[in-house]
Amino acid sequence: MTESESLFSVTVRDHMMVAHSFQGEVFGPAQRLHGATFVVDATFRRTELDADNIVVDIAKAGQELNAVVAELNLRNLDEVFPGVNTTTEFLARHIADKLAERAMAGDLGEGARELSGITVTLHESHVAWATYERTL
Amino acid sequence: MTESESLFSVTVRDHMMVAHSFQGEVFGPAQRLHGATFVVDATFRRTELDADNIVVDIAKAGQELNAVVAELNLRNLDEVFPGVNTTTEFLARHIADKLAERAMAGDLGEGARELSGITVTLHESHVAWATYERTL
Amino acid sequence: MTESESLFSVTVRDHMMVAHSFQGEVFGPAQRLHGATFVVDATFRRTELDADNIVVDIAKAGQELNAVVAELNLRNLDEVFPGVNTTTEFLARHIADKLAERAMAGDLGEGARELSGITVTLHESHVAWATYERTL
Amino acid sequence: MTESESLFSVTVRDHMMVAHSFQGEVFGPAQRLHGATFVVDATFRRTELDADNIVVDIAKAGQELNAVVAELNLRNLDEVFPGVNTTTEFLARHIADKLAERAMAGDLGEGARELSGITVTLHESHVAWATYERTL
Amino acid sequence: MTESESLFSVTVRDHMMVAHSFQGEVFGPAQRLHGATFVVDATFRRTELDADNIVVDIAKAGQELNAVVAELNLRNLDEVFPGVNTTTEFLARHIADKLAERAMAGDLGEGARELSGITVTLHESHVAWATYERTL
Amino acid sequence: MTESESLFSVTVRDHMMVAHSFQGEVFGPAQRLHGATFVVDATFRRTELDADNIVVDIAKAGQELNAVVAELNLRNLDEVFPGVNTTTEFLARHIADKLAERAMAGDLGEGARELSGITVTLHESHVAWATYERTL
Repeated sequence: MTESESLFSVTVRDHMMVAHSFQGEVFGPAQRLHGATFVVDATFRRTELDADNIVVDIAKAGQELNAVVAELNLRNLDEVFPGVNTTTEFLARHIADKLAERAMAGDLGEGARELSGITVTLHESHVAWATYERTL
Repeated sequence: MTESESLFSVTVRDHMMVAHSFQGEVFGPAQRLHGATFVVDATFRRTELDADNIVVDIAKAGQELNAVVAELNLRNLDEVFPGVNTTTEFLARHIADKLAERAMAGDLGEGARELSGITVTLHESHVAWATYERTL
Repeated sequence: MTESESLFSVTVRDHMMVAHSFQGEVFGPAQRLHGATFVVDATFRRTELDADNIVVDIAKAGQELNAVVAELNLRNLDEVFPGVNTTTEFLARHIADKLAERAMAGDLGEGARELSGITVTLHESHVAWATYERTL
Repeated sequence: MTESESLFSVTVRDHMMVAHSFQGEVFGPAQRLHGATFVVDATFRRTELDADNIVVDIAKAGQELNAVVAELNLRNLDEVFPGVNTTTEFLARHIADKLAERAMAGDLGEGARELSGITVTLHESHVAWATYERTL
Repeated sequence: MTESESLFSVTVRDHMMVAHSFQGEVFGPAQRLHGATFVVDATFRRTELDADNIVVDIAKAGQELNAVVAELNLRNLDEVFPGVNTTTEFLARHIADKLAERAMAGDLGEGARELSGITVTLHESHVAWATYERTL
Repeated sequence: MTESESLFSVTVRDHMMVAHSFQGEVFGPAQRLHGATFVVDATFRRTELDADNIVVDIAKAGQELNAVVAELNLRNLDEVFPGVNTTTEFLARHIADKLAERAMAGDLGEGARELSGITVTLHESHVAWATYERTL
């Protein structure tokens, strides 16, 4: 953050419970079919508040996150993304990109077109998580 | 807890990442192959402390919990427990019973034979968990 | 817990955001109109699992908790419960009793009639919470 | 963060319990008088440590945060900020700006004049929070 | 919990940061001088609420817990309790017993004489904690 | 974060339990020998994922963090760093720098040479933490 900058953000949390396996020696025993609960935090960033004093309609933000997560929830990701290592990092980017599409399409309200960025964090356990942040 | 009782306990935490599916209409979309991270809390109870002022050797407790969890970690539970609904409740009992066997066998140290009970909680997400408690 | 007992439980979490004020000198500045986010944990207890290996249908449990919490969410409790000190303790009992009614009425499924008890914890902040537990 | 940069920060946590209501259709049922517990995290940033190896006197930081939060705690924000939507975002900025004033006035110690920025996060529940960050 | 019982409780959280060492081979490297932050949860139990709908004055409960913790905070427990293994279990009992003395002396208010029990949990890390519960 | 930027990160958590004392009036009673549990979060940042879709081998990341933390765990830091105020901020930098050395030496795998930065957060309690972030 450079001189005299400021930034607002709002974060909503949801989760999904998925199966998957990884390809590549680096993954060791995680090459076997296993699973994870991903607690998903989606952050919406903006430099100024709108006329209602909000970054984004938090109810809409939660609904959109839930809709994106629902596409993956209770599934085997090896079938949803064939041939892809659906790592926590990959999934964070996937969800952030899907939210960015929805924001750009106006699904989070007109004001959401003013968002400057989105960050998604996936907690895979109490001791490990991954984050992807992008501009809009 | 009745009059004039007291009770000590020590809890250690570990986790496992597994795939599984459920059989039965009550499970809805969770009948599909999916997965979970289970954050596992194992509690060891005892009415009096030993001469070292401990309930149980906490390092040994952590090692034994890790050993029990490792048998399930990064696996498809549909293969480990064929034909069984490996619900959070079922897994909590399974882990508690395995820890009880190890305590009775002396794997947690001689003092652990004085344990009065074991409780295991499995957190399947930030909004849901299950517990099984038993006497020894 | 006496000799040779065992107990299962399942817990689901929801929350509500309410206004209220208290009457009585013991409450000091909390006699003023203020508010709270209550993170609500509802625990359902049972001595044996059902044929599906569950304590209760966790989806139904979450829906029923949400329905009970929705009656209070985003309200001024001074209007919902006139003349009552809606302390965290009081609200924990209120929610537990409402859940007990629903369980007895079969709203959590037939198996829920086998529940032995319900516990409700309301977290009013990161440093304070209250619990009410009752038998069924 | 650009090449070869580094940054220290220290965060302290406090909380407040307030009532408020919102104006505007976007808020839906939150237009009703309701309330919230805000768990408040205040972060103080600095590029170099001082001679004591600290960013700021953490005791003073906690006291100043408590003083700022105390002005709002156990109040109806509709009276403290008439006609204003006291959203989580708005309150994060309000608290950050108050802390910035105090830092500039020397209330956090002489060294705090070297702070480069302040970030304030308000957690309104276990599933939603807002952040405001600014330079000094 | 037997048939038709019910129980209320209120919990407050504080913390202390102490040094200590242990004597006995079971402690391994923890025989060296080291330290811990103990996050301390004190729970006050009661079968019925008082006329104000509370278990205990939560402000007084927090003050009394803080007073008990302050006697140990920022100290070397090897000096406070010479020759004693100040394990997490031991400290949980120590704090519970001190709180019980204060409750019996009326320091938590007259109503606190109706308390049926106290439970103290000390979290020594994000993966280990100990609890002591006693009747009053 | 400027226009059109994106960033991945992975974080792993460990902890250490240490004794220390501080020199300087600013520290007040923390000048006495005391201790802390530091829950340590190490974040590894990178602009692009590698061919396996990861930022870094998370197993190796956990092992390296554990190795760095083990050098300090269960020790009196007044002896490890004579004459130094081993504040939370100082320790965050120390651990980040040690991890940076290991990353540069290839201990986190070849891909870790592509890391753009490391952030280390030390939680000293549930209400205070410090962070150090640096580029690589």
